[in-house]
Amino acid sequence: MRLTLSAITSRKRPRLVDEALKEFTSRLAHYATVEQLQIAREATLAKSLPTKSPSLSRRPAKLILLDARGRTMSSEQLAAWIGRERDAGTQHLHFAIGPADGWSKDVRGRADLLLSFGPMTFPHELARVMLAEQLYRAFTILAGHPYHGGH
Amino acid sequence: MRLTLSAITSRKRPRLVDEALKEFTSRLAHYATVEQLQIAREATLAKSLPTKSPSLSRRPAKLILLDARGRTMSSEQLAAWIGRERDAGTQHLHFAIGPADGWSKDVRGRADLLLSFGPMTFPHELARVMLAEQLYRAFTILAGHPYHGGH
Repeated sequence: MRLTLSAITSRKRPRLVDEALKEFTSRLAHYATVEQLQIAREATLAKSLPTKSPSLSRRPAKLILLDARGRTMSSEQLAAWIGRERDAGTQHLHFAIGPADGWSKDVRGRADLLLSFGPMTFPHELARVMLAEQLYRAFTILAGHPYHGGH
Repeated sequence: MRLTLSAITSRKRPRLVDEALKEFTSRLAHYATVEQLQIAREATLAKSLPTKSPSLSRRPAKLILLDARGRTMSSEQLAAWIGRERDAGTQHLHFAIGPADGWSKDVRGRADLLLSFGPMTFPHELARVMLAEQLYRAFTILAGHPYHGGH
C-alpha cells in the first residue's frame, strides 16, 4: 500500500519534532511506501484531487483529512478501517493535515474520511508526528506486532 | 500557579521528542512554575497523594489524570477549566500521564479530573509533548496571547 502524508503549511520543516517524525515514518516504511508532502496552500492540494467521477480504470487515492470536527477513532478502529481498505483493494491512502484555519467546504466534501484526533487543537508539526505514529501503530496492529500492546 | 507534569514510566528520558518537550515546557514556564517528574511506578505516585480528607489549611495539588476514558475537551475548554481553578485559588495542578496498562481504580478515584486526548493511544513520550503543548496553549488563551489563533 502507498501512503501519502501531507501537511498544508507554508512553514519550514518541523524542526522541533524532526527526529520523532523521521523515526515514525521510517518505521512505517516497513509496512508501506511512504511519501511526505508539504503543500503551501490548500488550493494546490485541491487541484491535485481527481474529479468526483473518476474512471473506474484509474483508482485515485482515498483522501483522509485530519479535521477536529471529523470522526474520532481508537487506534484499533483506525487499524480496522485501514485493514478494510486494504482488503477492498485500495492501493493508496492520502492523509492530509489542514491549514491553520481549517479545510474549505469544497475540499471537505471531497474527502473519503474526516478523521479527528479529538477536539483539542494541536500545531501542525505535532499533528504530523501524531499521524505518523498512529499509522505506524495501525500497521503494527494489523501485523500482530507487539508495539501497540506495550504502550 | 505551580504545575507538576508527571509520567509513570520506567523508561529513560524521551529522546525522540526531547527538543519539543523542552521547548514547550520552557514556554510554559513564562506563565507558571513548572516541574517535571518521571515516576517509575504508579504506587509511588499513589503514596505521594494526600488522604481523601485533607485539612483545609493545607490545600493539596489538584490531580488531573490523562486517561483515554476521561473527558475530552477542546483547547478552549481546558483553558477555561484552568482559569476557573486559578480564580478559585487553586495554586497547584498536577497532571499525570499513566502507565502503559492504564491507571488503577484506586488512583482514578482520587483524581480531580480525568482528561482525555481522545480515544487514540499515544506513546507516553508523545503524550508528554502533547500535554506540555496543550498547557502552554491554555495559558496563552487565558493571557490573550495570539499563539492559539495562529494554529
